[in-house]
Amino acid sequence: MGTLTQVRVGSPEAPPHPEASELELAGVLHALSDPVRLRIVSALAERGEQPCGAIELPVVKSTCTHHFRVLREAGVIRQRIEGTTKLNSLRRDELDARFPGLLDAVLSGCAPALTV
Amino acid sequence: MGTLTQVRVGSPEAPPHPEASELELAGVLHALSDPVRLRIVSALAERGEQPCGAIELPVVKSTCTHHFRVLREAGVIRQRIEGTTKLNSLRRDELDARFPGLLDAVLSGCAPALTV
Repeated sequence: MGTLTQVRVGSPEAPPHPEASELELAGVLHALSDPVRLRIVSALAERGEQPCGAIELPVVKSTCTHHFRVLREAGVIRQRIEGTTKLNSLRRDELDARFPGLLDAVLSGCAPALTV
Repeated sequence: MGTLTQVRVGSPEAPPHPEASELELAGVLHALSDPVRLRIVSALAERGEQPCGAIELPVVKSTCTHHFRVLREAGVIRQRIEGTTKLNSLRRDELDARFPGLLDAVLSGCAPALTV
């Protein structure tokens, strides 16, 4: 039992992610259709994997959590847990494979959104 | 008075449209983040200017009107009135100028959305 508990604590289950084949255009566009989420996506594209708190956002923590969840559930980002930290990364390869050019077009267009 | 009324009937005011400079990425993405609206955009891209009723959509007329309005207010389509018909067209040049590659990426990606 002790060993089992240790395993659980050491490797908490990752939150659920859609498979690449399940990504839907309308869902991805909806996830991207918010200035705060565009800012998250832009930061991850620029800096690679980041903990939630490393991206400065003009909203309270619970709202941040919501935005990260929307992005994860749509398949835009991947979240993994390392110790007590939730790390976020863009699912760039999968998005590029499924919707070629979309992420690049959004990232080029979202510079003005960073001024939220 | 009679003349004024005739002018009004003959040239009804076009519904309001945002200027090209007012288009916002989050707003455009939100307008595109719905399978029915993707279907409208895809039909307009393929066939050019169309009356609302010429695009077969799996929703009632009032819902169609709502979807066309969302697209117009975000700056994705232009609506003009000719007689008793509302004609819709994609604002492709303006969207391409402001968000290069976005519309093409969305149109390439939205073939599966046409099966709604």
